[in-house]
Amino acid sequence: METLEGRQSVFAALSARRRRVQMVLIAHGSHLDKLEELISLANELGVPIKYVDRAELDAMAHGSSHGGVLAIGSPLPRLNGDQLLDLVAKLSDPPLLLLLEGVDDARNLGFTLRSAEALGIHAVLIKKHLWDFDSVEVARPASGAYERLPLVQIETVEPLARLQKRGVNLIGCIAGARQTLYGVDLKRPTILAIGGEKRGLSGAVRDICDSFLTIPTRGGPSSLSLSHAAAIAMGEAHRQRFH
Amino acid sequence: METLEGRQSVFAALSARRRRVQMVLIAHGSHLDKLEELISLANELGVPIKYVDRAELDAMAHGSSHGGVLAIGSPLPRLNGDQLLDLVAKLSDPPLLLLLEGVDDARNLGFTLRSAEALGIHAVLIKKHLWDFDSVEVARPASGAYERLPLVQIETVEPLARLQKRGVNLIGCIAGARQTLYGVDLKRPTILAIGGEKRGLSGAVRDICDSFLTIPTRGGPSSLSLSHAAAIAMGEAHRQRFH
Repeated sequence: METLEGRQSVFAALSARRRRVQMVLIAHGSHLDKLEELISLANELGVPIKYVDRAELDAMAHGSSHGGVLAIGSPLPRLNGDQLLDLVAKLSDPPLLLLLEGVDDARNLGFTLRSAEALGIHAVLIKKHLWDFDSVEVARPASGAYERLPLVQIETVEPLARLQKRGVNLIGCIAGARQTLYGVDLKRPTILAIGGEKRGLSGAVRDICDSFLTIPTRGGPSSLSLSHAAAIAMGEAHRQRFH
Repeated sequence: METLEGRQSVFAALSARRRRVQMVLIAHGSHLDKLEELISLANELGVPIKYVDRAELDAMAHGSSHGGVLAIGSPLPRLNGDQLLDLVAKLSDPPLLLLLEGVDDARNLGFTLRSAEALGIHAVLIKKHLWDFDSVEVARPASGAYERLPLVQIETVEPLARLQKRGVNLIGCIAGARQTLYGVDLKRPTILAIGGEKRGLSGAVRDICDSFLTIPTRGGPSSLSLSHAAAIAMGEAHRQRFH
């Protein structure tokens, strides 16, 4: 079982129906007018609502920003490699995927999921041996996207190679590439691969990349954070595809 | 006096020379090889270095991520309206400014300053009555940009109107504008105005905007955070200007 915290996360989990929500807990004294939509959705789905003292809620919560709303649910399903291929095969648009490597910070991941959903990414792949993120910390900045956007954890590059065999381009975003973001065709089936700030993309991923691009900045000591670099790259893909 | 925390912030403050650093404090047992550059810069500038126990450093620090390095310095100067006009008048490129309104979170502000510097913004204007940010919390995610990028706090729209009289376009980024980000000429002298997620841009700013634009997203319940919306808008300005 997992705890979901905050009105937005709980509402997104109920709406997305990707996991079973066992119960919603609301603190006595919460502003019920702000929770009307959530309460009626829970009722509609037959999810019981329990009203509890705020101290009891606080004791169950990881963080302090739940605002009086918690839920208990099954863990969010993550896709495996086969499910990812199925998802990609069923898309009507050319696939646009984001691969993240070397992400350690749950909050940065959450913000990146939020941007990814807003910019039309079909699934986010995270290359990591152990899924050690606190889901509450990911969910809060994701603003609901964590509940809706397909997430795939991969441990090796094998699922990437399978996507490449189906015609998806793996494009590594690295410093100093000859092409810039603005010189690459992102309308084609694409995986944008972005590495963490400390080490960038691993050799294993670089070795199989079809091409590379650099996100242009003014240089000098300035730089972009991972989640902001990702937003700019995904924004350019969105521009090329729809504008 | 202000505390600066962490190797990167202290090094940026010493390099930028925009404020007087009185003293650098380093915890006993810190990895001095990582601090070589900082120590030699402090020596060069005649800033004394004091080695102290980690407990003493911890007691002086606001946060816990100082990594054994602290400095004491004068507050960072912020430009006033006249200084902003001077700065804009002296630019060789068409000015590109960012106006933020309704920012409450120091961390989001810090990340936005980092992106702004990387994407060639000449100065960041923050419309706010009271400057109540914890400077350590702003500086950490800004990754040095806080020390280098000119910051202007404005309380009214008067400084904006003065910039407009000098030919700078005030463009409000709002939901539902008829033009998108990609249909607007950002090579001209520009202030990109972005409002907080709760209330957006104020009526006072909207009333004097020369035009509006929308950052396109796929819609639905998904959305961009302020710092990521800003990164995408500034990235497009950078694309138009240099690519």
